[in-house]
Amino acid sequence: MKYPNGINKVYKVSSSNRGMALEAMINNTNIYYRDNNIAVVYKKPTPITINKVDYKSRQDAVIKEAHFIIPSTTDYNGVYKGMYIDFEAKETRKEYFPLANIHEHQIRHLINIKNCGGIGFIIVRFVLDDKIYLLTIEKLEAFINGNSRKSIPKKYFEENGFLIKPGYKPDLDYLKALDQGVEKSEKSIK
Amino acid sequence: MKYPNGINKVYKVSSSNRGMALEAMINNTNIYYRDNNIAVVYKKPTPITINKVDYKSRQDAVIKEAHFIIPSTTDYNGVYKGMYIDFEAKETRKEYFPLANIHEHQIRHLINIKNCGGIGFIIVRFVLDDKIYLLTIEKLEAFINGNSRKSIPKKYFEENGFLIKPGYKPDLDYLKALDQGVEKSEKSIK
Repeated sequence: MKYPNGINKVYKVSSSNRGMALEAMINNTNIYYRDNNIAVVYKKPTPITINKVDYKSRQDAVIKEAHFIIPSTTDYNGVYKGMYIDFEAKETRKEYFPLANIHEHQIRHLINIKNCGGIGFIIVRFVLDDKIYLLTIEKLEAFINGNSRKSIPKKYFEENGFLIKPGYKPDLDYLKALDQGVEKSEKSIK
Repeated sequence: MKYPNGINKVYKVSSSNRGMALEAMINNTNIYYRDNNIAVVYKKPTPITINKVDYKSRQDAVIKEAHFIIPSTTDYNGVYKGMYIDFEAKETRKEYFPLANIHEHQIRHLINIKNCGGIGFIIVRFVLDDKIYLLTIEKLEAFINGNSRKSIPKKYFEENGFLIKPGYKPDLDYLKALDQGVEKSEKSIK
C-alpha cells in the first residue's frame, strides 16, 4: 500500500513495541487458557520500591515516588495439569539470541525451579523471520555449560527447542509445544 | 540476609503492623526453602497502574504517579516437589475469620488453581491466641457452599485445617503442614 508524501510509517513497530507483540500474544493466550480451564498462568506485576505515598483517603492512595527494580524471578508462572510452569519471554532482532537479554539470576531462578520439580523454559521470538521457539531450562543450561559464547544461535533453537505456531484461538499455544517436549523426554526415558 | 524486591523487613511487631508479622515469617521461610532447595515460593509484587514516569535517564526512571490496584490473584505462589502451590496469608484479631478479608476473586482464583490440579490454600493467623492454620481451598469452598455465614469460626480451622507451629529454622514450616494434608487426603482415598 502506498501512502502520499512518502509516509510509510504506519506499520512501523519500534523495537520496544515488538517486545509487546510477543507479550500481548502470551497474555491473550493466558486468558484463553484460564477461560477454558486449561491452565492458570499470570504475568507478574512489575516490581517496584515505593518511596512516597500520598494518602488522600484510605481508598485513594496515590504513589508519588517509586522506582523500578530488577526482577528476582521471571515474568510468568502458573499451573498446567498440576505441574508448576515458569518462563520468561523475549524477542530478538538478530539471527541469534544474546544471553545478555536474560538476567543471570533469572536463569538461576529457572534452574532452581527445575531442581524443585517444576518446568522452566524461555520463549524466544526471532523477529526477522517471525519464528517463535520454546526452549527448556535443561537445554538452555546445557548450552551455557557447553559454550563460552555469549549468544545462542537460532540453529540451537531449531534443533533443541519446540516451534510454537501462532494461531487464532489461542494466539500462541505454547502449552501444546510444551506437551511435545514432555512427550519427547518421556520417550527418551523408555 | 537478602529479601526479594529489595524489601527490608525489620522484626518490629507493633499492634499496627502485626499484619506484617505473618508476612515476614512467611517471607523468611520462603528464603529458607529456597536456600535449602526445598521449594521456590515468592510473594508477588504489589500490582499498580503507572500514570507518570520521569525518565531522567534510561537507567534511572522515577515513577511520579501510580495507583494501587486490586490484585487478580493471591500473594504467594511457587513450586514444591513439582507441585504448584498458591496461597493467601491473612491475620484476624477476632475469634473468627471474616470472609470479607479475602477478595471474592481471590477465592475464585484458588478454585481455578484446584481445577487445574494445583494446590490452593489460605494461611490464617488468629492473633489473640497466636494460632496459625493452613486451610485448603477444598475446605474453604465446602464452608462457603454449606453456610450463609460471612465468617468462619476458629473451630472450623481447628477441625478442618492444619496447625502450623512457628519455629526457628524455618520460621513457619507451612509445607510440613501441607504434607500432613496431602497424607491425610491420600489415606481417605484408600
